[in-house]
Amino acid sequence: MAISSDILNLISNRRKGYTLEAPFYLSSEIFDLDMAAIFGHHWIFVAVEPDIAEPGDYVKVEIGHNSVIIVRDDDMAIKAFHNVCRHRGSQLCDDAKGSVGNLVCPYHQWTYDLSGQLIYNEHMGEAFNKNDHNLKSVRVGSVAGLIFICLAETPPEDFEAMRAAMEPYIAPHRLADCKVILQDDIVENGNWKLTMENNRECYHCVANHPELLKSMYEFGFGYQPSPANAEKVQEFRDLIEVEGKRWAACGLPPAEIDLLDSCATAYRTQRLPLDRAGESQTMDGKVACQKLLGDLTQRNLGGLSFWTQPNSWHHFMSDHIVTFSVMPIDAEHTLLRTKWLVHKDAVEGVDYDLKKISEVWRATNKQDSTLVERTQRGANSEWYEPGPYSPYTEELVEKFTNWYIQRLEATLENAEFTAKLTEKSAKNAKAVPIKVCR
Amino acid sequence: MAISSDILNLISNRRKGYTLEAPFYLSSEIFDLDMAAIFGHHWIFVAVEPDIAEPGDYVKVEIGHNSVIIVRDDDMAIKAFHNVCRHRGSQLCDDAKGSVGNLVCPYHQWTYDLSGQLIYNEHMGEAFNKNDHNLKSVRVGSVAGLIFICLAETPPEDFEAMRAAMEPYIAPHRLADCKVILQDDIVENGNWKLTMENNRECYHCVANHPELLKSMYEFGFGYQPSPANAEKVQEFRDLIEVEGKRWAACGLPPAEIDLLDSCATAYRTQRLPLDRAGESQTMDGKVACQKLLGDLTQRNLGGLSFWTQPNSWHHFMSDHIVTFSVMPIDAEHTLLRTKWLVHKDAVEGVDYDLKKISEVWRATNKQDSTLVERTQRGANSEWYEPGPYSPYTEELVEKFTNWYIQRLEATLENAEFTAKLTEKSAKNAKAVPIKVCR
Amino acid sequence: MAISSDILNLISNRRKGYTLEAPFYLSSEIFDLDMAAIFGHHWIFVAVEPDIAEPGDYVKVEIGHNSVIIVRDDDMAIKAFHNVCRHRGSQLCDDAKGSVGNLVCPYHQWTYDLSGQLIYNEHMGEAFNKNDHNLKSVRVGSVAGLIFICLAETPPEDFEAMRAAMEPYIAPHRLADCKVILQDDIVENGNWKLTMENNRECYHCVANHPELLKSMYEFGFGYQPSPANAEKVQEFRDLIEVEGKRWAACGLPPAEIDLLDSCATAYRTQRLPLDRAGESQTMDGKVACQKLLGDLTQRNLGGLSFWTQPNSWHHFMSDHIVTFSVMPIDAEHTLLRTKWLVHKDAVEGVDYDLKKISEVWRATNKQDSTLVERTQRGANSEWYEPGPYSPYTEELVEKFTNWYIQRLEATLENAEFTAKLTEKSAKNAKAVPIKVCR
Repeated sequence: MAISSDILNLISNRRKGYTLEAPFYLSSEIFDLDMAAIFGHHWIFVAVEPDIAEPGDYVKVEIGHNSVIIVRDDDMAIKAFHNVCRHRGSQLCDDAKGSVGNLVCPYHQWTYDLSGQLIYNEHMGEAFNKNDHNLKSVRVGSVAGLIFICLAETPPEDFEAMRAAMEPYIAPHRLADCKVILQDDIVENGNWKLTMENNRECYHCVANHPELLKSMYEFGFGYQPSPANAEKVQEFRDLIEVEGKRWAACGLPPAEIDLLDSCATAYRTQRLPLDRAGESQTMDGKVACQKLLGDLTQRNLGGLSFWTQPNSWHHFMSDHIVTFSVMPIDAEHTLLRTKWLVHKDAVEGVDYDLKKISEVWRATNKQDSTLVERTQRGANSEWYEPGPYSPYTEELVEKFTNWYIQRLEATLENAEFTAKLTEKSAKNAKAVPIKVCR
Repeated sequence: MAISSDILNLISNRRKGYTLEAPFYLSSEIFDLDMAAIFGHHWIFVAVEPDIAEPGDYVKVEIGHNSVIIVRDDDMAIKAFHNVCRHRGSQLCDDAKGSVGNLVCPYHQWTYDLSGQLIYNEHMGEAFNKNDHNLKSVRVGSVAGLIFICLAETPPEDFEAMRAAMEPYIAPHRLADCKVILQDDIVENGNWKLTMENNRECYHCVANHPELLKSMYEFGFGYQPSPANAEKVQEFRDLIEVEGKRWAACGLPPAEIDLLDSCATAYRTQRLPLDRAGESQTMDGKVACQKLLGDLTQRNLGGLSFWTQPNSWHHFMSDHIVTFSVMPIDAEHTLLRTKWLVHKDAVEGVDYDLKKISEVWRATNKQDSTLVERTQRGANSEWYEPGPYSPYTEELVEKFTNWYIQRLEATLENAEFTAKLTEKSAKNAKAVPIKVCR
Repeated sequence: MAISSDILNLISNRRKGYTLEAPFYLSSEIFDLDMAAIFGHHWIFVAVEPDIAEPGDYVKVEIGHNSVIIVRDDDMAIKAFHNVCRHRGSQLCDDAKGSVGNLVCPYHQWTYDLSGQLIYNEHMGEAFNKNDHNLKSVRVGSVAGLIFICLAETPPEDFEAMRAAMEPYIAPHRLADCKVILQDDIVENGNWKLTMENNRECYHCVANHPELLKSMYEFGFGYQPSPANAEKVQEFRDLIEVEGKRWAACGLPPAEIDLLDSCATAYRTQRLPLDRAGESQTMDGKVACQKLLGDLTQRNLGGLSFWTQPNSWHHFMSDHIVTFSVMPIDAEHTLLRTKWLVHKDAVEGVDYDLKKISEVWRATNKQDSTLVERTQRGANSEWYEPGPYSPYTEELVEKFTNWYIQRLEATLENAEFTAKLTEKSAKNAKAVPIKVCR
């Protein structure tokens, strides 16, 4: 099979500095391409190590129609498997998370160990070879406690580079020693790329995010000095430099890294000062958990932000961590999953208050969800046309869109990808216009 | 691109005097054609002037996926714009109606004045030209207070003829001096053409509309004398003649106009006598509002009915007005919007009672909605086949269907229409069988 | 038109002994083919004679988009008609069941007698010929009280063979003298073939159906002796032989018939012993209705099971009957309809208790529904691949799948079927990429 020339044209004719053409937000065919080329061939952030702290702990995540189990095995290694029994195809795990000794299919009790090997089944006779029926594994990796998976057989190799670069930044927050105290799943009524584009700029913050801007400066989120705000941007850059030196002295790397559109496993990171008390993304800028993370002793460490393509962002403060993953549902719906973490020994009601720790991002997520839905509805109009990004405040949006288009192009030239398309085409069914009127 | 030969055959093979083939009620492809050719290239009734009485008042209407804002500008002119910001494509107005000074996008505060000009935005730099980013306008016109829009760049010119002909009929009811006291939105589970066909005959009234027939004679709705009812039809025609003279003496034009299938902007009008007290479409035939419309002093003026293709009908009585608009949602769902209006100075509880004024059409709409759904379900059967319209009671249904087929044919030959199809085809994406099994 | 080569390949490449490829469970195109070739050209179980005990009684059933009325006429014959008025196409009957004198369309009162003849309508004039507008009939047949319909004009002829063979088995339970005391409609979130495959094995029973296994031996449901359970299977076969002689002496045929994959109207039947009290499929194995069926005087008659392709199974005990029909809704949803029957003179609260009589299958249906959904979700994964059936416990599943593939192949060569496809293709509309981005 071949990707249609219309889609190839849309990809190659993308106008730099502008939002995408409407089909990128609406078309179910482009959505399928996104799922195959972007979410099927890149590293996707899906969970955190504290989700599976002990041997046998698992979480189930869905990437499109594909259900994946991420499990801690008996040697404390992280494994990932497709959640499909090799007998009749039943899903093995129903629950979003849990703890098991082995993975037992509830249908006919085929039993797999935590390395995915089929170790027991009945009634299959002598000729049956268990080794041919192990669970299918999925590539998995952890960046200082952030778990990524890649569905492709040959994942982008530069994941290791990101891991190596990011570990010194994240390590001091000791994610593995945290616990998830809250998880919010929001279904946004918009294409996943609108969720991402919205995340990649703070031009909209002043009018939309009063809670967030109590502690956050918008300038850290892709602002370039313009005639109108050059002074404020410079003040902020000066502040970063001063604070950066203090953080470096605490063993916290201060340098910005921005590789948002220059590699397959693309990301950006920077430790950014916070306003008011300067400690945490809370309403008063003070820490929301009295027990600090890891061995940290200072509260006012600003926030380490970490953004990855295509689907995550994270904020690490001295007292708590917030992680976000974006999971496409269909062309017009997206799951935004937010997790809040504190030190595993922190006690609710003593060290932290759940409402105080979550109120800023809960409010912000809700506001962003409205913005995404409104933009999706606008893209639905036949009179929508791509509009210009601001050169001063939407640079990171442009980088997201650049990366997206580049990665579509690169994946469409990838031999593994095109081979899989051809195989599917040979095996599966094309549209049959039997009941042509529907 | 070309419209498929199968659809062209269905259009050209339509059997006169019969209901349409099933795909016209079921096919999402024909629905898309309907939205493009019928709702995209004809004058569509969407609102009434009292919806936007003051400068800055707006209503938002949806025609398919296209959202349009209709606004009263500072000079009291009516303007219509696509509800899409020229920056990132966000919808500007969420609410169904409201009042504004300017149109401000809630995303990044791009600000347009009531003539659609972009008058303010931040962060766009020197090279940015505001004039290139004004709101896209929509053609709009008012027929004595009934607001129609047309999405095409070159709307049918005969709108002016309809306006000129209808104004003398409607003007005495002074729509602009009314207020909307109630609006009902019903989603009917059927194709929009079934909603229209149901409206265009009263053959079904006797068994289905006990409330409506308290005041209405079914004979005025497309009846021709038949062997079985020639006498009653003649009595009714005699009544029209007698009453017509009286109405003419009050300055109310009595002549029937029927252009339902003979022009692009097609319509029919007639002032019809009412039964019982003869004053209004109420349970007892008496006025439901004591304050009469405009300068009217007589109550028993029957009802002026005005039907337009493809999507509206209206009844003007001495005391109140009821307007109906039909808005397709998808091939099997349709929005029926009903508005009740009285004199703007009438006082609820003093001059009129909301229940009394609305009970007849609320009951009738509900009954019709059931009939439409039942017919849609019937059309879904593979054993459905077009059936014959009654030559004596379904003439106006036949005219609706004639008009529909004629207008599809005419629009498919329209250069603007075919150019737009070609442009879309070049720009957008065709089906890509990536995940071929879905 | 032609069925796409991809679907033909999927059909012809089916691997024996394995579950089907994913598109058979997911593709809406294959679903349409299933509805046309399997449900449109085979005998489908839809109701029982007690549903329409008296003249004028009707039940409405839906096969895909097609609504069919099954009615008892004044001569006590069973008739079936498409539920579509020949005038404007309205459905005639809304209710799932009822009783009527004639079939009167609620839209314009066109009136058909119980033989489907149009006997009355108004306003159609002299030229109108009633005989051209009778209801369209559907082939219908009863197997000792089980009502089957076939939508094809030329149904498989071997229905008569099944009827002749089955009547001696079922007749002693006197289905016509029963009443339906309960009907459950469950929508399962899975393809209809998964519902059927699940029904055709009891490998899953031990872990999933504690209530059912109180009275049922799993060995009767397609088990073959294996090294692990040869002894138990032999014990069960010995029990069948002993009990079979006793049942034969009561006039109940003991021989198994298995034609599940060897003819168009395919089925299997066997009277099987029950555990515990051995009387009925209840929690204690005792009858749940004190009044026995027909002239039966013994309680411990085990259960006569009757399975048909493509969509039913039935259990006849001495005291009650349970029937199941499977009706596809779309590729991923299926209606399972269960009816419980007892002797028509049995009195609730005296002879039987509704909870006791229904609790086993209500629990079992719910458990099966979960299994079907889980398997559907598994098939959705791109990493699903066909798995092996157990040679010892899944023989009847293999036969169902064999039958399905054989009947697709046979129907695709059937002249009536291919003619209808061609006719539809000529009449109806193909996909028109007008709004190509959706």
